[in-house]
Amino acid sequence: MEFDLIGRIRDRTAQLRDDVRLGIGDDAAVLAVPPDHELVMAIDTLVDGVHFPHGTAAADIGWKALAVNLSDLAAMGATPAWALLALTLPPSASAHARTAFVDGFAQGFAELALPLRLALVGGDTTRGPLAISVAVHGLVPAGQAITRGGARVGDTVLVTGTLGDAAAGLACLRDGHVGVQPSERAYLSDRLNRPTPRLAAGIALRGRASACIDVSDGLLADLGHLCAASAVGAEIEVAALPLSPAVLAVLDATAARDVAFAGGDDYELCFTVAEAEVSEVIGKLARGGCRATRIGRIVKGEGVRVRDAGGGWLDIARKGWDHFAP
Amino acid sequence: MEFDLIGRIRDRTAQLRDDVRLGIGDDAAVLAVPPDHELVMAIDTLVDGVHFPHGTAAADIGWKALAVNLSDLAAMGATPAWALLALTLPPSASAHARTAFVDGFAQGFAELALPLRLALVGGDTTRGPLAISVAVHGLVPAGQAITRGGARVGDTVLVTGTLGDAAAGLACLRDGHVGVQPSERAYLSDRLNRPTPRLAAGIALRGRASACIDVSDGLLADLGHLCAASAVGAEIEVAALPLSPAVLAVLDATAARDVAFAGGDDYELCFTVAEAEVSEVIGKLARGGCRATRIGRIVKGEGVRVRDAGGGWLDIARKGWDHFAP
Repeated sequence: MEFDLIGRIRDRTAQLRDDVRLGIGDDAAVLAVPPDHELVMAIDTLVDGVHFPHGTAAADIGWKALAVNLSDLAAMGATPAWALLALTLPPSASAHARTAFVDGFAQGFAELALPLRLALVGGDTTRGPLAISVAVHGLVPAGQAITRGGARVGDTVLVTGTLGDAAAGLACLRDGHVGVQPSERAYLSDRLNRPTPRLAAGIALRGRASACIDVSDGLLADLGHLCAASAVGAEIEVAALPLSPAVLAVLDATAARDVAFAGGDDYELCFTVAEAEVSEVIGKLARGGCRATRIGRIVKGEGVRVRDAGGGWLDIARKGWDHFAP
Repeated sequence: MEFDLIGRIRDRTAQLRDDVRLGIGDDAAVLAVPPDHELVMAIDTLVDGVHFPHGTAAADIGWKALAVNLSDLAAMGATPAWALLALTLPPSASAHARTAFVDGFAQGFAELALPLRLALVGGDTTRGPLAISVAVHGLVPAGQAITRGGARVGDTVLVTGTLGDAAAGLACLRDGHVGVQPSERAYLSDRLNRPTPRLAAGIALRGRASACIDVSDGLLADLGHLCAASAVGAEIEVAALPLSPAVLAVLDATAARDVAFAGGDDYELCFTVAEAEVSEVIGKLARGGCRATRIGRIVKGEGVRVRDAGGGWLDIARKGWDHFAP
């Protein structure tokens, strides 16, 4: 099974890169890292019913399995290059169903990979409950990777795009989309199933952002990780949260705030920039088609504090968000 | 959960390497590939009840999950450097059981990784049915990776170690070890649960082996892959198969031959060498503590043919081994 299914995926994701000395088909892949560059790599797993709703289209799973990994490269400022894929497929499915799933999966994977010139260079297929692990590999000029650990007191905290869309999309899906307009449903569903890793933004932030993290677990949790790694605190303004018209249409203000803070699955970048450079950075990202919004600032201390629209402090612990508190 | 469990594994597998610019704890790891070297990488998944018997000790799973991947690096002649780990743990287990599993897993992983100076640089833990994907990364001097595709007509076919031990060990386990001596049981169980990737042998074969593959699916299947990649055939002698005393003690001659051919899980190297260099290569590997045995030769044509002890040809297809035939 292994060779044939991986071969189908290879045929649908074919990508010529000079730096792939040996791709799929041997015991391992052989790659050439260009001089004066460092290798950046991450791995993430999606499990059926945990990371995507059971019954999600194979093409959406293929896209998302790659996207969530590329989001980690984006947060480092890396340019994507190569991926390894470990695909576990249920033995209960017929050979025809397995092939159909693999073809759909490969199509969604390729839709994201091909425009990025990312090459799938190795893989493994096994029998078992449906799950996908992808290991992605990117490149940065030596010493230019952006980490979580460089935020300084006084830096501005920004976030790309809008927050809470995926969580709102999942909530709509669970509620049967009652009262949701088709255009909002399509937008939120796309944000849930087809997140767009902020790769161009990450690259543009090299040498400009003092710290960066991708928002996968929710803004407050992930900004909490950034603060811990940088040994600083952060203060965030509720009124500044970037929310999409679709989220505001399907959720009330409190629910919208909650998904923006802790919904997860956003795959936006949360990053810090010295105040003097904020306007330039926002302008640069905007020229690349990526909106970035100031949401707060880095302060002395630890943990994330949130100011509500009235100027008071939200009691985050009481909201059940204390898993990200210091 | 993710951060804490991966942190436990990190603490138990800590390994200092100058080339790890950034290890576990950020969105991705950052590594430096030395000049004039190429990167070699592979991924493999182990699923509970498929790749190891349900109830296998956590430490054995940790060792094996790394070993099967390192075997792929060994087949390329690569020196291991870094690994990424994706660990999926059942939500049904208690927090205490998860922690105990992770500690055992990390111990077994570290027992293999630490002497090799392999660094675990990133990971992901998720909820789901027990499964482990490991992506390993190694280094070779540029252009020196050994592939499956270089075997030439007239080359000698060799294999390291002994074949069929893991399959015999699994058979004994399933049969309740009836009539098996403790020493044989321990040997075969170790070969099943703690395979030793032939890394030193692979490195010694750089520039000497014309082709190499690791024997994971069984000798005939994997030698079949090597032949297909090299556009040649192979003829193998049953009488030459290297069988351990333990296999010969627990199985009759026919069953021993069958597990040697198609049992799988051997993680030995099958490789080809020009006839003039065979003695030198066998001697070099022996000085490194690795036995290598001539088992046949490369011929024109395609597929693997097997000569029995009487000089006739075995009908491989009739034996049910036709999945590896051309």
